[in-house]
Amino acid sequence: MKTIINPNKKDWSELLKRPTQTVENIENTVTEIFNDVQRRGDKAITKYTELFDGVNLNEIQVSPAEIEKASSLVPEELKEAIQTAKANIETFHAAQKTERVSVQTSKGIDCWQEKRPIQKIGLYIPGGTAPLFSTVLMLAVPANIAGCKEIVLCSPPNKEGKIANEILYAAQLCGVTKVFKVGGIQAIAGLTFGTDAIPQVYKIFGPGNQYVTVAKQLATKYGVAIDMPAGPSELLVVADDTANASYVASDLLSQAEHGADSQVILVSTSKLLLDKVQSEIQKQILNLPRMEMTQKAIDNSKLIYVENDDIALELINEYAPEHFIICTKNEDFYVDNIANAGSVFIGNYTPESAGDYASGTNHTLPTNGFSKAYSGVNLDSFTKSITFQKITKEGILNIGNTIELMAEAEGLQAHKNAVTLRLNDLK
Amino acid sequence: MKTIINPNKKDWSELLKRPTQTVENIENTVTEIFNDVQRRGDKAITKYTELFDGVNLNEIQVSPAEIEKASSLVPEELKEAIQTAKANIETFHAAQKTERVSVQTSKGIDCWQEKRPIQKIGLYIPGGTAPLFSTVLMLAVPANIAGCKEIVLCSPPNKEGKIANEILYAAQLCGVTKVFKVGGIQAIAGLTFGTDAIPQVYKIFGPGNQYVTVAKQLATKYGVAIDMPAGPSELLVVADDTANASYVASDLLSQAEHGADSQVILVSTSKLLLDKVQSEIQKQILNLPRMEMTQKAIDNSKLIYVENDDIALELINEYAPEHFIICTKNEDFYVDNIANAGSVFIGNYTPESAGDYASGTNHTLPTNGFSKAYSGVNLDSFTKSITFQKITKEGILNIGNTIELMAEAEGLQAHKNAVTLRLNDLK
Repeated sequence: MKTIINPNKKDWSELLKRPTQTVENIENTVTEIFNDVQRRGDKAITKYTELFDGVNLNEIQVSPAEIEKASSLVPEELKEAIQTAKANIETFHAAQKTERVSVQTSKGIDCWQEKRPIQKIGLYIPGGTAPLFSTVLMLAVPANIAGCKEIVLCSPPNKEGKIANEILYAAQLCGVTKVFKVGGIQAIAGLTFGTDAIPQVYKIFGPGNQYVTVAKQLATKYGVAIDMPAGPSELLVVADDTANASYVASDLLSQAEHGADSQVILVSTSKLLLDKVQSEIQKQILNLPRMEMTQKAIDNSKLIYVENDDIALELINEYAPEHFIICTKNEDFYVDNIANAGSVFIGNYTPESAGDYASGTNHTLPTNGFSKAYSGVNLDSFTKSITFQKITKEGILNIGNTIELMAEAEGLQAHKNAVTLRLNDLK
Repeated sequence: MKTIINPNKKDWSELLKRPTQTVENIENTVTEIFNDVQRRGDKAITKYTELFDGVNLNEIQVSPAEIEKASSLVPEELKEAIQTAKANIETFHAAQKTERVSVQTSKGIDCWQEKRPIQKIGLYIPGGTAPLFSTVLMLAVPANIAGCKEIVLCSPPNKEGKIANEILYAAQLCGVTKVFKVGGIQAIAGLTFGTDAIPQVYKIFGPGNQYVTVAKQLATKYGVAIDMPAGPSELLVVADDTANASYVASDLLSQAEHGADSQVILVSTSKLLLDKVQSEIQKQILNLPRMEMTQKAIDNSKLIYVENDDIALELINEYAPEHFIICTKNEDFYVDNIANAGSVFIGNYTPESAGDYASGTNHTLPTNGFSKAYSGVNLDSFTKSITFQKITKEGILNIGNTIELMAEAEGLQAHKNAVTLRLNDLK
């Protein structure tokens, strides 16, 4: 860990830099696989599944029987936990529903805005040693509330050609309509172009490694929307002497265990707290199964001392953390004034893990400073708003001249004519 | 114009294809200019302004005196029209404000979602023969309602080193904070990296030619968000015998005059109407100053006859038009069931021009089929939602075990520990 005391403002941008990733070489691979999947469809999908996942599959869609069997193998206790989390996520996302916004802007001019579901969406769930079934909840639950019709899930198979039981259980519980044993770049390409087996979708959600991230970026070139650009996960904690150093350390470690490139920052107006947290981390890390990787992330982490809350806030807004924990006496100051953050956790009894799993908020959040402009995934991520307008004869008589003048000034005569024709008939 | 009778469903995707644009060569130019602006800042900006706009500027920021003088030169009548449009746009976008969404998902677990403004945004307004001051209204008005602090406008100077009076008038009227005489790729690069003169922004809005479009896409690689990917403007009208053929023709022409690559489609269950509209277009087009360009777009336009409303609706949803005009007896059928469209105009007295300028809805809309997944610009485009949560001791006791079980099953021991530590203290 690096402790930085009163960093000079001109050094902030260097200090707060994320670990950089070069993606140049990956782009060629991604483009090649996209071209192949576009040309050869499922044949290409099968080829890359064999190449990258080491398994040759005759059938890439998961059958109802497989899902049923997988679900029966999930321990009852875990099922109940998943259901509890699902209920909270449902409650929070259902509350985000908005009514039609309807306004008469002038007499005879009715304008309204309605949100309608994105019809077809794709969810990408990474495979690997840890099955991220919690992400299935975070994406499929709001998709269902929004009313998306086709919810397609892709996840890489293991060497036995299987997807983790927990993922399949969560998928059927949350109303995913189709599940495919396809991972990596080829999954994103399949969802982008559609194949005989995989439906083409309009928007792709979900985390992934660098290959998946670059593939999602390429998908946008083909007109498919994505949830957000993704980077390594990150946590910034602001804490003072009212914080429990042991809890703060445990939260920082929970972020650090995601990977060696995870970012962990502690900002404090108390040097004493920085010391305490540092020694707590050294104690707690010894018991972690992922200790080596966690240690790497912790080595790159930063403990920053600043003189007061104003400086702390400015620095935090400059960093724009994905996760932001506030454990300070004057928590309202930070809650009220934070401009850039993905999700905010307040007080000693609100660990980031709560939001990662079960409190109800979404855990798909903007990393890499993107919270300056991007929202985390929420109900609106699964809808688009459409505007409507209906103008009466009286309405066009009211506003017609305004439109004519503006169209004329912009040199768009046909725009003006469309109004003039109508006005002439009405006058 | 091409008339297509009862197209076979398997031919729809070919029939509804947008005019394709190749962007390969442009990408190299854009990358080169981005690199130069990143390295040399304002020096590079000045160089490209001289190269592309043919003017050498000592000072790229527009001064208050220039704005005042420009405003005084805008005719009073046009000023009033702009103010009327602004008032309607304000009314419609202010109505889109949403309250904080606050829920207790379980006992002791308070979660809420709040929208906060994107602090710094950039608006790009194209130059050229027609000064698109209406776009200034469409972007700066909602940005102001949202509470964006820094609203930077870039627009290319003419050969005299000036930006159109109407654009400067609209900019000051709508609360733009800084205006720069910079256009094209170099403007987008300046907003992306920031220079001594131009502030770095978090999100870039606004239309532009292919160069600007590709530049905006490249900006996203540097972590800057954009409003949406842009393509040539397009209009689809569905009309039956209750429609006024002359009005329909005028609306199709108003779209066609945007450029030779504009898309214009008429769908109808009436062959008679298709004929009438066709002859009206031939009549009206003769009087248009932009006739030649308009004729090119009309040549590529399509008049499609289908047998019934169900088929029409399916085809329209497949196309996903930017602008969608409904002039049919059973307009509710289309209003209720349209799944993919940017903005919808209903009835004989609702020309697209109304929404383009003054009714209050936004005219920055998803083209190229992107309305399947993207919203047009609206108040939310200038905010991001942040989630907050605060958990009490009782709350973590309630939900702690759920989190522990899920974290354990995902192999994330440190996530579990963060909860276990707290539970142990509380038990």
